[in-house]
Amino acid sequence: MDCIRIGIITASDRASAGIYEDISGMAIQDTLKSYLLSSFEIVYRCIPDEQAVIEQTMIELADQQACCLIVTTGGTGPAPRDVTPEATENVCIKMLPGFGELMRQVSLQYVPTAILSRQTAGIRGQSLILNLPGKPASIRQCLDAVFPAIPYCIDLIGGPYLQCNEAVIKAFRPKST
Amino acid sequence: MDCIRIGIITASDRASAGIYEDISGMAIQDTLKSYLLSSFEIVYRCIPDEQAVIEQTMIELADQQACCLIVTTGGTGPAPRDVTPEATENVCIKMLPGFGELMRQVSLQYVPTAILSRQTAGIRGQSLILNLPGKPASIRQCLDAVFPAIPYCIDLIGGPYLQCNEAVIKAFRPKST
Amino acid sequence: MDCIRIGIITASDRASAGIYEDISGMAIQDTLKSYLLSSFEIVYRCIPDEQAVIEQTMIELADQQACCLIVTTGGTGPAPRDVTPEATENVCIKMLPGFGELMRQVSLQYVPTAILSRQTAGIRGQSLILNLPGKPASIRQCLDAVFPAIPYCIDLIGGPYLQCNEAVIKAFRPKST
Repeated sequence: MDCIRIGIITASDRASAGIYEDISGMAIQDTLKSYLLSSFEIVYRCIPDEQAVIEQTMIELADQQACCLIVTTGGTGPAPRDVTPEATENVCIKMLPGFGELMRQVSLQYVPTAILSRQTAGIRGQSLILNLPGKPASIRQCLDAVFPAIPYCIDLIGGPYLQCNEAVIKAFRPKST
Repeated sequence: MDCIRIGIITASDRASAGIYEDISGMAIQDTLKSYLLSSFEIVYRCIPDEQAVIEQTMIELADQQACCLIVTTGGTGPAPRDVTPEATENVCIKMLPGFGELMRQVSLQYVPTAILSRQTAGIRGQSLILNLPGKPASIRQCLDAVFPAIPYCIDLIGGPYLQCNEAVIKAFRPKST
Repeated sequence: MDCIRIGIITASDRASAGIYEDISGMAIQDTLKSYLLSSFEIVYRCIPDEQAVIEQTMIELADQQACCLIVTTGGTGPAPRDVTPEATENVCIKMLPGFGELMRQVSLQYVPTAILSRQTAGIRGQSLILNLPGKPASIRQCLDAVFPAIPYCIDLIGGPYLQCNEAVIKAFRPKST
């Protein structure tokens, strides 16, 4: 059986230059480990906020590394160097606006600046690409909100079966199509 | 007086091949009949999940059949054969993102996988095109949520006056522009 | 110190032709005056619902007049002459879908036809462009909902520091990036 592979891309000029530690990438990894009973391998990349580099990295993780899920952190705000959603749209064949809507709605319960986030999600081949915010606290809030839909989404695009630790997060799979 | 015409498009490989009955299309028809006091004629098409066919059918129902409202069911998920939102965007001149947002929000009260739906709505000439989910139960939930805005929308694009059965659904028309 | 400049664009065939008074533009001006302790100058334009004219006016207010915030009113519905969101998308480099989502959600508490509004927001250079509805009552509801995020957004795109009257509206600026 092939191993399940999940990509984590940290888009951050400062973290990729070693100016500070990539706490966000670690937070995603820890959260995924707490969610999943299925064993999986992390493919991790920490790169600068360059749209072309982000796109190439997403393409590599989807097409060569065969990650069924690619989670990004950083680069979703309104500042000029925030280009992760643009990269995501460029490499995806289908966008899933419901992910961004729900994550903004959840974040709005904590901060009114949640509406500044342009985070989204989309499909490239057999990979689901999901943008998360840059801050560790918001990452967990967003993942808790959207993850219940992710295993079924990956089923629908022909990916591997993800089994969740139901004590931590409940995946939902409708009975029939 | 010209008769009011409403289109129903079922996008489904299996229903169009006769593998199973189109319960979803019937559910839409029954719901519309319960909503509207105005007499109307249904123009019904059951077609495969082929983007070009869906687009041609939408164009025919809007431009030749003069349907003021065209409701689709099916093809809004993340799977490769789900292409109804793409077809809708291609034939519409204006998109109305508020429909998809509200329908996903309502469906989220029932299933966390509601965020996987890419359903949307848009305007083509004097026709409002609305994507609904594939499952009969979700169809009614979504229509109940968005229909109160539909008669006024059709007024605004120069369509016929739809009169609702207020005991079932209340159309809302603002007092003045 | 350069003066803070805020643009107000009323897109309305009738108001620009002098058929009625531009109450909406005045409502925006009054609301902004009640929000802001920082002194600012209004750059005001009342123009017809012509997409090219709206785009040129947005470009002038952003690039020549150096407005850090450009607020529009009118032209966000589904009717053929409603083209303000299209103009906004054409002149912006980044769209901020969270603004439209939140404004529609807030308006939905008052009228079910809120889903017909296509209002959005985006970034052009160092300007935030925000579409508001045409009706004075809805304008205030929408601004109250989204304004807390606006000063920080303008910080992020390199604009001036807006200070709010906290008794009226609380701007939110996260502690650290």
